[in-house]
Amino acid sequence: MSERRLLIMLPGPTNVPDRVTRAMVKPMIGHRGPEFHELHKRIIENLKYVFQTRNDVYVLTSSGTGGVMCAVGNLVAPGDKVIVPTYGVFSERMRDKVKRRGGKVIEIPVEWGRAPTAAQIEDALRKEKDVKVVAIVYNETSTGVTVRELPEISKVVKEYGALLIADAISILGGDDLPVDKWNVDVCITGSQKCLACPPGLAIVSVSEEAWEAVERNPCRPYYFDLMEIRRFYEEKVETPFTPAVPLFFALDEALQIIREEGLEKRFKRHATCAAAFYRAFEALGLSIYPKEEKNFSNTVLAVNLPEGVEDGALRGTMKERYGILIAGGMGKLKGYIFRIGCMGIISESETLTTISALENTLKDLNYPVKLGAGLEAAKEVFRS
Amino acid sequence: MSERRLLIMLPGPTNVPDRVTRAMVKPMIGHRGPEFHELHKRIIENLKYVFQTRNDVYVLTSSGTGGVMCAVGNLVAPGDKVIVPTYGVFSERMRDKVKRRGGKVIEIPVEWGRAPTAAQIEDALRKEKDVKVVAIVYNETSTGVTVRELPEISKVVKEYGALLIADAISILGGDDLPVDKWNVDVCITGSQKCLACPPGLAIVSVSEEAWEAVERNPCRPYYFDLMEIRRFYEEKVETPFTPAVPLFFALDEALQIIREEGLEKRFKRHATCAAAFYRAFEALGLSIYPKEEKNFSNTVLAVNLPEGVEDGALRGTMKERYGILIAGGMGKLKGYIFRIGCMGIISESETLTTISALENTLKDLNYPVKLGAGLEAAKEVFRS
Repeated sequence: MSERRLLIMLPGPTNVPDRVTRAMVKPMIGHRGPEFHELHKRIIENLKYVFQTRNDVYVLTSSGTGGVMCAVGNLVAPGDKVIVPTYGVFSERMRDKVKRRGGKVIEIPVEWGRAPTAAQIEDALRKEKDVKVVAIVYNETSTGVTVRELPEISKVVKEYGALLIADAISILGGDDLPVDKWNVDVCITGSQKCLACPPGLAIVSVSEEAWEAVERNPCRPYYFDLMEIRRFYEEKVETPFTPAVPLFFALDEALQIIREEGLEKRFKRHATCAAAFYRAFEALGLSIYPKEEKNFSNTVLAVNLPEGVEDGALRGTMKERYGILIAGGMGKLKGYIFRIGCMGIISESETLTTISALENTLKDLNYPVKLGAGLEAAKEVFRS
Repeated sequence: MSERRLLIMLPGPTNVPDRVTRAMVKPMIGHRGPEFHELHKRIIENLKYVFQTRNDVYVLTSSGTGGVMCAVGNLVAPGDKVIVPTYGVFSERMRDKVKRRGGKVIEIPVEWGRAPTAAQIEDALRKEKDVKVVAIVYNETSTGVTVRELPEISKVVKEYGALLIADAISILGGDDLPVDKWNVDVCITGSQKCLACPPGLAIVSVSEEAWEAVERNPCRPYYFDLMEIRRFYEEKVETPFTPAVPLFFALDEALQIIREEGLEKRFKRHATCAAAFYRAFEALGLSIYPKEEKNFSNTVLAVNLPEGVEDGALRGTMKERYGILIAGGMGKLKGYIFRIGCMGIISESETLTTISALENTLKDLNYPVKLGAGLEAAKEVFRS
């Protein structure tokens, strides 16, 4: 395997700072001893800062999908009604997870590239009685759409006495998501996105109202049982099952980096880089996949492939000639869009490097582009 | 946190060779690209060697418990009959997992410290019609018992047309378990035991007969769905959800170390070290928890706490004064036994160091012990 270091501009995994990578080589520790307890406690406290919450927060040894299954499996009992708006691959996966769980899905199909609105959710809540959960993918990684009405959606959900699950896997830590202020009952993220940590951990927060539902749920999942996870944390600051200790070391370091920077600066940095990307795309004559600017994501940028430019050629050239990994489209968007992750360590440097490579790649592929136009537009954003 | 390096003689996690630890700091790669495919393919091929199987083998981003849930969730549909002999904490957990899954458990309670026999399993199979699965914890980590009749149990299980699940988490790679020869339908292990890798990955093998059951199962778990896991592997050498890439790097290196040594030598090394430990315990007047010598485990050694020696004092002194981590008892054995992991990199050096520390600890705690007696008995084993 080549160990050439690529610039990872994927929507996860993302570039991992050396400090975080090096944390993984600490000597192994037992997960039932004081060294782990101290590490675990500090991680949870720092995660509460990142989630902007006083709710309970837990780390799971699984991918982000495992975290979503934890939320669904603990809140939803077979037969429970769950509203799931669908507007991309991950919201459709949310729907499928609820179905697989035995929940009764009330699907709100939304045109891909758009976000569900509070009015749509309210409409569904008015029509259906006894909806238990509304499950929203806050940042649809497949379409580059952020559901900007999440606070309004949350208000409606609460008015109808339902619970709100927010899959924030590809956004938390990179854009504002104040869990308590917005009343998110279960919020989920993954280690390998905006936290700039390697993949392998999921993180979930659980509100008091969510706990009531969990406690009443007669059939919680075994591996992801929140009651057991809470019991082990409260009694011993441990996890019920063996945790992925090196990834805990990494997460600990990644969270310390976030605290050093501060959330506000971090969100601003992501927003500025995203704005620079969007301005550059515009200057290069590329069109953005999401339909409305207000829902443009600051962490996953989805761009329509220009006519005559083939997906594999674009990504292949970016990688082989310029050393930058970007993503293609997922599901029905494969071959129609490309996606850039704007996450974690993203700064002016990675942004300009990527834009420059993109310009050159388009030129290499004979797409008419004025070299430097995108770069200039992006620089303008960083200057202002 | 102290970064003092302890000798880890726990029944998992175990000491990780530097080569394996260092593998984790390789530059991050995307999990949908050729670098990951190459890595993934090599891991699976080497795992087939370690499992001694031509069956399909998969790596899951979860603890070993997640691997067991994968086996149970894919093979057992609600209402299916499952025989589970119970003789310790982990076999009781197996029973609970099957129950939680909705399976109908036929429990065979066995005295702790003993192993279930083929005759007991046959008896249960004769009495109950249509048993779908027999689930055995091959090495009961809580009692130090290895189910030596597993090949005979397998024969009986096959005669009755049932499927065999073997939880081999704390033994595979440290003692013989030829999956194909013994007809184990689903065999599970974890990364952090005899493979000498950090924790965070589970590994499962799936036989053809098991596949038939999986394919007929109408309600497989979402995160651990073997059909999806197979589809992603066969179509793209990928995993359905984001894998814990640094742990894959580590597992790759750990498996290469195993291939370099060879399974036969590796099993012999574990067996010799275990024999040295058992002879040393005997020479020190300590009694072994398992009742029958034939079931003494070569990877987890469970020893009765001698009268007057308190659990916390024993383990505390071993750790603080001699830098060695050993484990206490689990569940109802807490305070009655201590346990030593004999796994992974275990060699004469770690064995003698641990025995020496144990002798000195016992002396420090005023337990009458002839210093050097255990060490001498152990050395005798290594000499022969």
